Amino acid sequence: MSRCLSLEAQRLAPYTPGEQPQDQQYIKLNTNESPYPPSPKAVEAVRSAEAEKLYLYSDPLCAGLNCALAKRYGLKPENVISGNGSDEILAFAFRAFCGTAIPVAFADITYGFYEAQAALFGLDALRVPLREDFSLRVEDYMEFPGTIVLANPNAPTGMTIAPLEICRLLEKNSNRVIIVDEAYVDFGGESCAPLIPKYDNLLVVQTMSKSRSLAGGRIGYALGNAELIADLNRVKYSFNPYNVNRLSLAAGTAAVEDEDYFQGCCAAVRETRVWTVNALENLGFTVLPSSANFVFAKPDRLSGGELYRRLKENGILVRWFDKDRIRDYLRITIGSRAQMEALVEKLTELLKK
Amino acid sequence: MSRCLSLEAQRLAPYTPGEQPQDQQYIKLNTNESPYPPSPKAVEAVRSAEAEKLYLYSDPLCAGLNCALAKRYGLKPENVISGNGSDEILAFAFRAFCGTAIPVAFADITYGFYEAQAALFGLDALRVPLREDFSLRVEDYMEFPGTIVLANPNAPTGMTIAPLEICRLLEKNSNRVIIVDEAYVDFGGESCAPLIPKYDNLLVVQTMSKSRSLAGGRIGYALGNAELIADLNRVKYSFNPYNVNRLSLAAGTAAVEDEDYFQGCCAAVRETRVWTVNALENLGFTVLPSSANFVFAKPDRLSGGELYRRLKENGILVRWFDKDRIRDYLRITIGSRAQMEALVEKLTELLKK
Repeated sequence: MSRCLSLEAQRLAPYTPGEQPQDQQYIKLNTNESPYPPSPKAVEAVRSAEAEKLYLYSDPLCAGLNCALAKRYGLKPENVISGNGSDEILAFAFRAFCGTAIPVAFADITYGFYEAQAALFGLDALRVPLREDFSLRVEDYMEFPGTIVLANPNAPTGMTIAPLEICRLLEKNSNRVIIVDEAYVDFGGESCAPLIPKYDNLLVVQTMSKSRSLAGGRIGYALGNAELIADLNRVKYSFNPYNVNRLSLAAGTAAVEDEDYFQGCCAAVRETRVWTVNALENLGFTVLPSSANFVFAKPDRLSGGELYRRLKENGILVRWFDKDRIRDYLRITIGSRAQMEALVEKLTELLKK
Repeated sequence: MSRCLSLEAQRLAPYTPGEQPQDQQYIKLNTNESPYPPSPKAVEAVRSAEAEKLYLYSDPLCAGLNCALAKRYGLKPENVISGNGSDEILAFAFRAFCGTAIPVAFADITYGFYEAQAALFGLDALRVPLREDFSLRVEDYMEFPGTIVLANPNAPTGMTIAPLEICRLLEKNSNRVIIVDEAYVDFGGESCAPLIPKYDNLLVVQTMSKSRSLAGGRIGYALGNAELIADLNRVKYSFNPYNVNRLSLAAGTAAVEDEDYFQGCCAAVRETRVWTVNALENLGFTVLPSSANFVFAKPDRLSGGELYRRLKENGILVRWFDKDRIRDYLRITIGSRAQMEALVEKLTELLKK
């Protein structure tokens, strides 16, 4: 920390991303990436001539991508904003809809980035404990007077909230925004996107990093009422007007338009998840009910941290959070069937010892 | 503006980027892009297999790119941070080194994005008037107690400050950070990067959008003392940990390594600038001395706004700022020789009428 760092930056709580080793071959089940390459159409979109046009700025409006997304979700382009990953979109939303007069609430066990955002904007943040079984009850948020952020499915649990429950929050107080972070929704959750025409205080945030196999392309987006989206654009143009690069715009647009490939990848992940849950339970794990491309699982012997370390020594990376309530669990990304078989084989060996 | 917008977001002053028409063929001299394609090595880096790897996250450390930049500037990787364009880097720097206790100063006529940043972080901002001839005198900043942002060369004037002058600011108060925004330095300015080992309060910000022909790739970076860079990373990990995508990392790294191509493009722009300044002066324009890839020029008849509009009607886009002190000027990007010849031909016609 330099002597010049502002007080505001001293108070930050930077997010720690999962390990991204660049130099070694791990079976990488720690950052919820897709095990499948992007749609061939997205790869082709990048290859075809776009690289030569990089001397020109990307479209700050992201018009082509936003149109494709609007079409996909039965909305209008003014209901869509695209960003440099959904983290950037979340940051825009935290700035737009939270402040000194608007606190924020999120679960005690959820995506750790919300905590970083609350610190970034100096927000009064209420951390609402999940119930004992890690379920989220909307009753616990009913009277909260500020912005509510719900990951649905939640991370790292994989558990869902029914959209009908979220409607109760939306209706209870129409002057507060409910941000539903649907990073993992395509693997078995139910999206709130169809509710957008009905609720002007609903913001749905999604990403192409998981179900669209474009984590390295950094493309996220929000869907919502046109006024909410205009608010987010206000922040975007204060922060980074040209926020999505040309190649990601091209890849993202092609990926959204390739519905068949997308559906195929999601179905494959779901199938492998069923197999993995079964195998883990056979090994004595307690596995939370997951609708995501990962499972949250507790071994019946060895601590979470110990098992994480032993797996890493054996070339398999999973995610372990050294945090109250979840220290005993591992978050394991659903990779390819072959990767999961290798994991189960290694776990069998490690847990036998 | 929705009823849910935070007070903080209501107070924003969003930046207005230059027009980016997607649907019509203009001679586009309004956003200071390079007229040349990126290095063939950068294009090749994008094409070769990288698109298929987009299912994996990009390296949050941007290690490969930072190493290439460190090597290019005779620094260490810990002296470098890369971002999603230099706008993002500037935002990180404003958050890190400005706050309620640290005001910011910049010129009254400079890159408009600084104003947006000051509003984004609710900063006390001092706008220091450039002298009558649009020169910046460091004396005017000598006693300022906060962070100072200097565009060098300045935009939209193209005029420079000598690094020796900046040293006087750095030495006068070593507890304040001087941010030198060198977006245009490669076209004839003198970089402060060689001063980094000497001054731990100097932050140099550069971009690949201009001299590296990668505006659409969105790659910016800062060079500075390792502690300052660590401070910027603190903000980055609070805002967007995976801020640079895989394809831009690949393209940017290849571009930095292709020194010959870079030097060739810069030399071509300088040569065309000499020709353009001469031609404009022959047409009666007053042209400020430019070290950038644009010129700031005042016609001797017609107002700046009127000439901007007539050029646009005739298929040529330049930038006009409807702002005190510079309303009579046009900012004209140095395009290819053919583009500048077309501009001069059209100007000859328009100014004759």
